[in-house]
Amino acid sequence: MKHNFGAGPGILPHEVLKQAAQAVVDFNGIGLSILEISHRSAEFEAVLDEAVKLVKELLEVPEGYSVLFLQGGASQQFAMVPYNLLPEGGKAAYLETGVWANKAAKEAKYFGNLEVVATSKESNFNYIPKDYTVPADAAYFHITSNNTIYGTQLQNIKPSPVPMVADMSSDIFSRKINVADFGLIYAGAQKNMGPAGTTLVIVKDEILGKLDRKIPAMFNYQTLIEGGSMYNTPPVFAIYVSMLTLGWLKAKGGVAAMQKENDAKAAQLYREIDRNPLFKGVAAMEDRSKMNVCFVVENPEHEKPFLKLCDDKGIVGIKGHRSVGGFRASIYNALPTTSIHVLIDAMQEFAEKNK
Amino acid sequence: MKHNFGAGPGILPHEVLKQAAQAVVDFNGIGLSILEISHRSAEFEAVLDEAVKLVKELLEVPEGYSVLFLQGGASQQFAMVPYNLLPEGGKAAYLETGVWANKAAKEAKYFGNLEVVATSKESNFNYIPKDYTVPADAAYFHITSNNTIYGTQLQNIKPSPVPMVADMSSDIFSRKINVADFGLIYAGAQKNMGPAGTTLVIVKDEILGKLDRKIPAMFNYQTLIEGGSMYNTPPVFAIYVSMLTLGWLKAKGGVAAMQKENDAKAAQLYREIDRNPLFKGVAAMEDRSKMNVCFVVENPEHEKPFLKLCDDKGIVGIKGHRSVGGFRASIYNALPTTSIHVLIDAMQEFAEKNK
Ligand SMILES: Cc1ncc(COP(=O)(O)O)c(C=O)c1O
Ligand SMILES: Cc1ncc(COP(=O)(O)O)c(C=O)c1O
Ligand SMILES: [Mg+2]
Ligand SMILES: [Mg+2]
Ligand SMILES: [Mg+2]
Ligand SMILES: [Mg+2]
Repeated sequence: MKHNFGAGPGILPHEVLKQAAQAVVDFNGIGLSILEISHRSAEFEAVLDEAVKLVKELLEVPEGYSVLFLQGGASQQFAMVPYNLLPEGGKAAYLETGVWANKAAKEAKYFGNLEVVATSKESNFNYIPKDYTVPADAAYFHITSNNTIYGTQLQNIKPSPVPMVADMSSDIFSRKINVADFGLIYAGAQKNMGPAGTTLVIVKDEILGKLDRKIPAMFNYQTLIEGGSMYNTPPVFAIYVSMLTLGWLKAKGGVAAMQKENDAKAAQLYREIDRNPLFKGVAAMEDRSKMNVCFVVENPEHEKPFLKLCDDKGIVGIKGHRSVGGFRASIYNALPTTSIHVLIDAMQEFAEKNK
Repeated sequence: MKHNFGAGPGILPHEVLKQAAQAVVDFNGIGLSILEISHRSAEFEAVLDEAVKLVKELLEVPEGYSVLFLQGGASQQFAMVPYNLLPEGGKAAYLETGVWANKAAKEAKYFGNLEVVATSKESNFNYIPKDYTVPADAAYFHITSNNTIYGTQLQNIKPSPVPMVADMSSDIFSRKINVADFGLIYAGAQKNMGPAGTTLVIVKDEILGKLDRKIPAMFNYQTLIEGGSMYNTPPVFAIYVSMLTLGWLKAKGGVAAMQKENDAKAAQLYREIDRNPLFKGVAAMEDRSKMNVCFVVENPEHEKPFLKLCDDKGIVGIKGHRSVGGFRASIYNALPTTSIHVLIDAMQEFAEKNK
C-alpha cells in the first residue's frame, strides 16, 4: 500500500482508477475501448457534456462563462492568455509568487508589456505579497492561487479592478471560489482533477474578442469555444478520467465538503510540523497552502534518514522541490486522511528515535 | 466482437489495451497507477525514452533529427509549423489535397504568405495533383501524405528543393518513408500510433532557429527539444500507450512487415469494391489510400440497408465523412485481416440479396 504525496501528476481516487481501467478494455459495455472510439460518437459527447456540467455545478459557474477542456497544460495557457487578452502596446499585471507565476509573466512579454505588481522572490517565495495596487489600465491581472513548489496559497482573493486571470493548477476544486470574480481561470488537470493531458479553462465570454490581433485557430479561445472543446480531436481519455474524478467529488459532497476535509487534513499535518522539534514549516503561517505542505528538518543530517523511513512506510513523492529542499507533502483531494496519519506517525517515530 | 473501421481515434491492438488497463490500476507492479506517477520519475522517463527510441528505430530516423511527443493534435502543428519556419514576408508552399491540407495552409497566413502549388478541390479532392513546381524561394513545402477524408494517398513522395513538411497523421508507421527527405513530420497519435492526446513531431534540427521572430516557450520547437518533450508535464498516459503500440509494431516485424500486411488488406478490399457491382471506389485508382478506403453505392437506396447490415455484423465506424458520403473503411495497422474478411463477406452477402 502506497501513500502518494506526489506534487503532480498526483494521486487519483481508487474507484476512479478502477473504472478507468475497465473503460480501457471495454467502455460502458459497447465492445470498444474508450481509447478507440470516435470523439464525435454519442458516447464521448456524453462524457464531455457531463464533464462540463460537473465543472459548472461544482464551482457554481455563473452564466456568461465558457468551460473548455484543452491540451498543452497550464504552460500553454501562460502564452494563450496574453495572446488573447493583451493588446500590442498594452500592459498586463502579474503577481509574482513563484516560478510558475514568473514563467506565466514572461510569456506576456511576447505580446505586450509586463508589470509585476509585487514579488516575494527576495525570500524564495515563502510568502504572498499583500501590499500592491493593480493598475486600472492593465488589460488583466494574473495570479497563481496556489504555489505548488513553495507551499503558499492566496487565502483571500480580492476582486480586481481589471479582469482577473488565475492559474489554479494546484488548488482547483479544493476550496470554494467565486468564479464571478475572475475573467479567466485555468488549471492543468494533473493535480486535483484528473491525469496529465488536459487543461481546464473557464473564461468569461465578454472579455474575449477585444483585440485587433489575428490569432491562429488552436490558440484562439473563441475558436475553441465555438468548437465546444472539439475544434480538433480532444484528449478523450484524460477528459473521461477527469469526468470520473469530478463525479467522485460530487458524490463526496462537492467542493464545500472537500474543503472541510482538506482543512482538517492540512491542520493535522501542520500541527505535527509545528509541534515536532525536528521539523519546521517553510511558508509564512498566514499563507500556508492546504494543498502542498512544505517543511524542512532543523538538522540537515536528518534529511536522508527521514526520507528512508518514509520509503519504508510506503510514503512516496515527498521529497521537496530542488529550489526549496526538504519535504513537500502534496495533500490533494484524493489523498485519504489515513495517509496523513501514516506520515504523522512516521514523523513522530522519527522524532522518538532521534531524541 | 466489434470490427472497428473508425477513422480516428481508431482501433488499437488488443494486447496493448489489456496492458494499458493493467497500468491504470498498477503500473509495472510499483503500487501506483500510470495516471498518478510523476513525469519526472525514473519509471516515466524510461517510458518516454523507449517511445522515442522506438520511433527512431521503426522509421530509421537519421542523425540530426529530434523526436518529440507533444500535445494539441495535428491541428496545433498547422500553426506551429509556420510560427517556427515561415519568416514574416516569406512564403510557404502547400499542396492542397483536402480539408486538412487546407486548414494547415490557412494557418500559414497568420505568419507570412501562402502559395498553394496545386489543388484538387475542383473534384472534391478525389485525386492527388501531380503537375506542379515547388518554388525554390519558399521557406518550406507542406504536404498531407494521406487524406483521411477522401481516401487518397501520396504514393511517391519526391524530395523537395526546400524543406518538406508532412502531415502524416493518418499513415505514419503504415509504410516505409525516407525521413531524410523531410524537414519536419508530424502526426496526431490517434490513428496509427496510440490514443488521442499526443502528437508526434520529427524535426531536422538545422531547419530551426533561422527566424527573427520571438516565439513563446510552448510554441517553440527549440524549447520543446531542449526540454526533451518535458518542458512541461507531458501527456503521460497517451505517450505510454503509444510506446506500447510501437512495441507491438516492432514485435510484428516493424514497418516493412506492416506495410506488406497493409498492402494485402487494402488490395483485398479494393478488389471486392471493384468486382462487386453494387459498390464503387471514390478515389482515383493510382492515388488510392491504403489506410482509408472510401467507396459509395451505385444505387443511393442501398446506403441505409448496407449500413444496417454492417451494424448487425459488428462492423462499426464505416460511415463516410459527410463531405464525401458513402462509406469509409479505415484499415489502420491494428485492424486485423479477419475484420477485412468480415466486411468483404458483408458486401458479398449484400450483393447476393440485392441481385
Ligand atoms: C501552479 C502551477 N502552474 C503551472 C504548472 C505547469 O503545468 P503544466 O505542466 O500543466 O504546464 C504547474 C505544474 O506543476 C503548477 O503547479
Ligand atoms: C490528415 C489529418 N490531419 C490532421 C488532422 C487533425 O488532427 P487533430 O484532430 O489531431 O488536430 C486529421 C484528423 O483526422 C487528419 O486526418
Ligand atoms: Mg510555484
Ligand atoms: Mg517543529
Ligand atoms: Mg483530408
Ligand atoms: Mg464495383
